[in-house]
Amino acid sequence: MKALVYSGPGKKSLEERPKPSISAPTDAIVKITKTTICGTDLHILKGDLPSCQPGRILGHEGVGIVDSVGPAVTAFKPGDRVLISCVSACGKCEFCRKGMFSHCTTGGWILGNTIDGTQAEFVRTPHADTSLYPIPEGADEEALVMLSDILPTGFECGVLNGKVQPGATVAIVGSGPVGLAALLTAQFYSPGEIIMIDLDDKRLEVAKRFGATRTINSTDGNAVAAVMTLTGNRGVDTAIEAVGIPATFELCEQIVAAGGVIANIGVHGVPVALHLERLWDRNISITTRLVDTASTPMLLKVLGAHKIDPKLLITHRFKLDHILDAYETFGNAAKTGALKVIIEA
Amino acid sequence: MKALVYSGPGKKSLEERPKPSISAPTDAIVKITKTTICGTDLHILKGDLPSCQPGRILGHEGVGIVDSVGPAVTAFKPGDRVLISCVSACGKCEFCRKGMFSHCTTGGWILGNTIDGTQAEFVRTPHADTSLYPIPEGADEEALVMLSDILPTGFECGVLNGKVQPGATVAIVGSGPVGLAALLTAQFYSPGEIIMIDLDDKRLEVAKRFGATRTINSTDGNAVAAVMTLTGNRGVDTAIEAVGIPATFELCEQIVAAGGVIANIGVHGVPVALHLERLWDRNISITTRLVDTASTPMLLKVLGAHKIDPKLLITHRFKLDHILDAYETFGNAAKTGALKVIIEA
Amino acid sequence: MKALVYSGPGKKSLEERPKPSISAPTDAIVKITKTTICGTDLHILKGDLPSCQPGRILGHEGVGIVDSVGPAVTAFKPGDRVLISCVSACGKCEFCRKGMFSHCTTGGWILGNTIDGTQAEFVRTPHADTSLYPIPEGADEEALVMLSDILPTGFECGVLNGKVQPGATVAIVGSGPVGLAALLTAQFYSPGEIIMIDLDDKRLEVAKRFGATRTINSTDGNAVAAVMTLTGNRGVDTAIEAVGIPATFELCEQIVAAGGVIANIGVHGVPVALHLERLWDRNISITTRLVDTASTPMLLKVLGAHKIDPKLLITHRFKLDHILDAYETFGNAAKTGALKVIIEA
Amino acid sequence: MKALVYSGPGKKSLEERPKPSISAPTDAIVKITKTTICGTDLHILKGDLPSCQPGRILGHEGVGIVDSVGPAVTAFKPGDRVLISCVSACGKCEFCRKGMFSHCTTGGWILGNTIDGTQAEFVRTPHADTSLYPIPEGADEEALVMLSDILPTGFECGVLNGKVQPGATVAIVGSGPVGLAALLTAQFYSPGEIIMIDLDDKRLEVAKRFGATRTINSTDGNAVAAVMTLTGNRGVDTAIEAVGIPATFELCEQIVAAGGVIANIGVHGVPVALHLERLWDRNISITTRLVDTASTPMLLKVLGAHKIDPKLLITHRFKLDHILDAYETFGNAAKTGALKVIIEA
Repeated sequence: MKALVYSGPGKKSLEERPKPSISAPTDAIVKITKTTICGTDLHILKGDLPSCQPGRILGHEGVGIVDSVGPAVTAFKPGDRVLISCVSACGKCEFCRKGMFSHCTTGGWILGNTIDGTQAEFVRTPHADTSLYPIPEGADEEALVMLSDILPTGFECGVLNGKVQPGATVAIVGSGPVGLAALLTAQFYSPGEIIMIDLDDKRLEVAKRFGATRTINSTDGNAVAAVMTLTGNRGVDTAIEAVGIPATFELCEQIVAAGGVIANIGVHGVPVALHLERLWDRNISITTRLVDTASTPMLLKVLGAHKIDPKLLITHRFKLDHILDAYETFGNAAKTGALKVIIEA
Repeated sequence: MKALVYSGPGKKSLEERPKPSISAPTDAIVKITKTTICGTDLHILKGDLPSCQPGRILGHEGVGIVDSVGPAVTAFKPGDRVLISCVSACGKCEFCRKGMFSHCTTGGWILGNTIDGTQAEFVRTPHADTSLYPIPEGADEEALVMLSDILPTGFECGVLNGKVQPGATVAIVGSGPVGLAALLTAQFYSPGEIIMIDLDDKRLEVAKRFGATRTINSTDGNAVAAVMTLTGNRGVDTAIEAVGIPATFELCEQIVAAGGVIANIGVHGVPVALHLERLWDRNISITTRLVDTASTPMLLKVLGAHKIDPKLLITHRFKLDHILDAYETFGNAAKTGALKVIIEA
Repeated sequence: MKALVYSGPGKKSLEERPKPSISAPTDAIVKITKTTICGTDLHILKGDLPSCQPGRILGHEGVGIVDSVGPAVTAFKPGDRVLISCVSACGKCEFCRKGMFSHCTTGGWILGNTIDGTQAEFVRTPHADTSLYPIPEGADEEALVMLSDILPTGFECGVLNGKVQPGATVAIVGSGPVGLAALLTAQFYSPGEIIMIDLDDKRLEVAKRFGATRTINSTDGNAVAAVMTLTGNRGVDTAIEAVGIPATFELCEQIVAAGGVIANIGVHGVPVALHLERLWDRNISITTRLVDTASTPMLLKVLGAHKIDPKLLITHRFKLDHILDAYETFGNAAKTGALKVIIEA
Repeated sequence: MKALVYSGPGKKSLEERPKPSISAPTDAIVKITKTTICGTDLHILKGDLPSCQPGRILGHEGVGIVDSVGPAVTAFKPGDRVLISCVSACGKCEFCRKGMFSHCTTGGWILGNTIDGTQAEFVRTPHADTSLYPIPEGADEEALVMLSDILPTGFECGVLNGKVQPGATVAIVGSGPVGLAALLTAQFYSPGEIIMIDLDDKRLEVAKRFGATRTINSTDGNAVAAVMTLTGNRGVDTAIEAVGIPATFELCEQIVAAGGVIANIGVHGVPVALHLERLWDRNISITTRLVDTASTPMLLKVLGAHKIDPKLLITHRFKLDHILDAYETFGNAAKTGALKVIIEA
């Protein structure tokens, strides 16, 4: 089968690989129909994630059709159309029992990281019963690809951790795909203001179309002042960090209101300065989270009720044969305007 | 009347001052019977808190007898014995309406900070109806002095924010008075282990008597390893920071389990390094809080039910005339073993 | 001044009464600009509420202009435009301190009940600082009248108690004004389905316009079967009772899903049968609540952000001189289609 | 093997039965070492539970040694010592994913109900990975038998649902084994008062030894008055119903404070009168629950930390050969004083 393989920092190729086979009784083999590329895949390609070794098939998102299942799989059978969660969960361990699937002792984010992933014609999915979801009758498969990772990430790490409330003021720092996913899902709770902050006016334009009530281009270094003006000097109830660098996290520290929350989504590579000398008496919370996809059942219901349109995030479409072009387009988002790209296998 | 006055960095004196009088209709004048000294008072004396200006009578804790009340005070009358909360709360503003009294727009921690405090024969208490508590029949007044500040601080900022649960593993970094207050109140929730970490073996001995199940002297730099051994490499569910310096906060970052909470109590003067490069995917929360004393009614009930013995914290007693000796004793805790000192007015 | 006075069961009249005056330092006198009639006023007129004695001026809703304030009022001054909460809250007592204003020991629902109310040219509002809200710049006063009682009632007793969640299935039994208020505010949380149940097709039509996704006319006794069909036999996550009779409460018992909530809003006059023989093992919750108006600040923000249009509830308008006509119209809702009527003073 | 078999209303016998065998890949066969009898077993014997048909081996509690496992079981192997949960949970279905194991679509309370149970030498346990717990090194097996059902039942249905808080006032109606389990576990949260109400002075004596701060014999019909006197006419914050008849539930309705919770544990056979005409405006919650055993990991930690002594509940011990005597003793608790009886297989 064809597969996109990571071959070490800076190197990737579309290769022929053997079709995967069941290796544990709880496995399923899924024929991929649609997959996508995540910002994390670009991190891997830079060599930033040592857990992902050369030779690995990338990809942790997608929908497909069950090809075969191990003898212990009871919820799925060949022919079933399924959504693949980016997180594999055994459903048994201490962490799974409390819904913290991201830390499953034999799962978590392993697809396209420590085991082969979804950017291929077939993928082996461990713990299939608790890591796949049946595709509801009549659902749009492209929209569902957004439920593998990006929507639950924006929702769980940003919106739920950020305790977004009706009427509240939210700032989202970073108007890339994951910030926009937070923007879309924040609206489930009817906040009064959603202020989107980014360096790129084009991305801010997109944010406005997605429901941002205010946008701030932070290039001039005046974002803090602008937020304070907008909020009558109170700051924001929820500040969602969706970039992953010290400057944006520290911006969140400066704009969070007393009693508010900083919900981190960003993948950070270096420490940030936590200004406890200013924040120790401000009654704030800071949260971090690797997406658990515990909210997937809820997101499927919201999607089924047409309360969200995840296809807004999809800007480009490619065949698997042209996945290298898809990487090119996705990797040059500033120029191409790419948010999420659909790859049809 | 006699009063302990801050006269600028390093300077304090016991002076004669005029008795305070009602200045707002919601004020009460309280004759102090017992007060105490807080670690924060020592910070003021070092010149660390610019909000507190020379000439200020210090002290934000105590019990006493109502001497007079303003015309809008309805809950208290002269002769009532009262507990004085360290936080003054109007009960009306946006913050008070959500129980975040520490950020009351006309109150908060003002006593012995921006207005004259309780280390005197009399004190003016603003917002009396919502900042004083009637002393229950038969209650021990010395024990109650611990409810002005130190017990609600340990409980709200450490235990409640730290979400201490039955059977859980808690570490408290800092075995001073406030760390010990967290230790006493953490036991309301029956955690399985309370690990106390400090540099001073004598303080750790005290912690053992107060209910710590394990103690670790961190002088040798091996505290992280010791905690990991005790917890089977999981780390602690709740890490309570009760010192206020970068080293102890970063220790908390290293010992918190995935899914756990770091509850900061310490008053910090400089930023700390937040290791998001390790913590971004660990599903943790970090909380800060200035005590709201919203838990005072609960603490009064727990005290009334004899579920806690706050007098364990009291090590020395002085008359107001000898308050300078009290400061000497309290300020040299390493030598004197002082935790809280009672000053009788 | 003119005032609508309850004169015993079945009797009311528009009378001349003396203008009220400040009687406690925390009082305000408010000149009413707009008020309305509540279903509870009709209950009083039937003689159902013995707490309300003949001679009482009715009404507990409205907006107006502060005429004078007592010496302890600090948040308002004459000339301020204010929203009057149906619940008076001292902000000091045990209940107020936990946001349960409905049970304030010197307040609660007293306006137009145990003290004179708002269906008059002026009203005395006790505990003014904690029972009035400033009208935001540019706000629509008619819309705000809906925030005195009906919107917080539907929201707190129905939606918040009912734990409405994104994607969830909600049933509201009773499509009168308070059921519709629950319907409007439930949408803050993006439920997947809101099923409205009533006996009157016209009211169900209104519900559809207000956002109900399904309507069921329960006249034929098949409402349970219809809900079960719609929900794949699961039942609803939240069942909101907005009528106040045994039949509708027991309907909620039959349609609530395992793990769901029955949130009662209805004012009940007789006991209902609780079928614990069917429900003891269903992991459900049942809640009751007298509105606390603790959510008023949130509702003001949501209104300010145009996330709700409370004016949808207003069907008729009258001058205070014609308030008897207003009662006539409101009391014959089945015929007139009245939801809420605005009375201009 | 020997097994206690239900043979229709009023009939049971100790019979020889074939040893069970693996029938699904997720099954385990467990050799029982200790089991016990539950009040529910007596209900079955009365013919009250039609789900349990004649021929069924009874029992849903116990500890034992894994004898064999199906091919999909990964967490246990033959020889492992295990605690058997009374609830079987697949870990996969909609309900299991939210921790509501009692409603598992292929599990729930099935042992000794719809499939053969634990009062035998061996038992087949479905969904073994998510329904068994490893017995910690050095744990007391008799104490652990109390964790199969009675302790999680008292804790989840009574204490957690009842939101027991430090300093709060709790009443438990019914001082039988499950009421006493609620009493033991309520103390994890340091309530100020635990009032135990029963008709039997001997049971109330037991309650006192187990930590009740007050006891009320309700034989004289004055229990409500007694509770009101004890609580200064406020009522109790949490009322736990642990009997299952209308009289005791309605007692809870009368003693619950405004803002309080009635947490039902009792198994009810007939409807009760819910006095909404008194309760609609009291801001109360009523909860029902079939135990989920979601708290078992927490209870194991609390037990490991010696914060509870479940062996207090064990009054008698029998060999499996004499299980009919055990039923005799347990069924005549009023005379024998039996709480829980241990049966050694």
